[in-house]
Amino acid sequence: MDTHVTTDMPAPKKLPVPRNGVDTPKLFATIAAVADQPSLAAFKFRAQGKWMGGTHCRSTVAGFYGVGGEMKHAMPFTAESDHPKVLCGEDQGPTPVEHLLHALAGCLTAGIANIAAARGVTLESVSCMVEGDMDLRGILGLSQEVRNGFQAIRVTFKVKGDAPAEMLQKIIDQSRARSAVFDILTKGVPVSIALEA
Amino acid sequence: MDTHVTTDMPAPKKLPVPRNGVDTPKLFATIAAVADQPSLAAFKFRAQGKWMGGTHCRSTVAGFYGVGGEMKHAMPFTAESDHPKVLCGEDQGPTPVEHLLHALAGCLTAGIANIAAARGVTLESVSCMVEGDMDLRGILGLSQEVRNGFQAIRVTFKVKGDAPAEMLQKIIDQSRARSAVFDILTKGVPVSIALEA
Repeated sequence: MDTHVTTDMPAPKKLPVPRNGVDTPKLFATIAAVADQPSLAAFKFRAQGKWMGGTHCRSTVAGFYGVGGEMKHAMPFTAESDHPKVLCGEDQGPTPVEHLLHALAGCLTAGIANIAAARGVTLESVSCMVEGDMDLRGILGLSQEVRNGFQAIRVTFKVKGDAPAEMLQKIIDQSRARSAVFDILTKGVPVSIALEA
Repeated sequence: MDTHVTTDMPAPKKLPVPRNGVDTPKLFATIAAVADQPSLAAFKFRAQGKWMGGTHCRSTVAGFYGVGGEMKHAMPFTAESDHPKVLCGEDQGPTPVEHLLHALAGCLTAGIANIAAARGVTLESVSCMVEGDMDLRGILGLSQEVRNGFQAIRVTFKVKGDAPAEMLQKIIDQSRARSAVFDILTKGVPVSIALEA
């Protein structure tokens, strides 16, 4: 915002206020702090997986590196994954690929709440359905032409807030443009796997 | 296995038996059933996300399509995601990107258990650390050169079982070669996002 303009420009934006459960002033202050000191932006996120028998795995998410040092979540979180009974699992949790869909829902939804707050839009409700198509001949080793992973993912949002549909659409677009999970799922990441002696 | 060979060939493999909590005979029967009727392999997995305020999202994973019809998990599962306090969230759950790491741990671990069972290897323990590097200048909109998502993911496994390290390594390699989540995270998937009126 160019504060030197003194002609009859639109009034400057209102100062950001907390909205949608988002502490908007703190969010802007955080962005400014990272802009001043980019080393704060280097994060390492971690999950520690433990085999529980069969196809059941439990991960613990407790610490991460960021803002220049080791951090801890408010509490250690655990997440379960398993295969369903039709795929010979014991169905002790969502499948691993369903966790990817949850991650996408969570990332886009958090972005929508943050961006709406930054733009002065008060949200009433946000929900989404995320669906991914998979042909199991890939992971079962029955076809070389079929990929192992999802062939496509579709997300459908319902958003209610004090803004017209086209502004809500722009908020969704901006959330996608800044989403870590959308970026990872659509563009891929190098993954290395090692066996420790 | 060529059952017509009657010369002094190695004895045929032992029939598969349940191992590692995996019902190996059922697993082979499932693969054979899908080979016979490929339409059984078409699956759709789903997560339904609900905004809980701030950057907190709760997903429900309940039903999926597969084996020719609508299926239900043993129970509806929920998963939480949020941003940590240093990123202006309320830390009500792992971050969305940590769920991706859990998904990778879960998928590779389930594969290891299945493949070890199929190869007659009894596992004692499997654990892994999954770590992903992220430069937050991407999602904070502070740099056009920095991507939003992970720049790299590293997985380190510890595996104990009644097989030498090189066989355990081959089991890990095969799990990676058949992993849905590894495929998705490394190669990417088309994702469409729509706002429902």
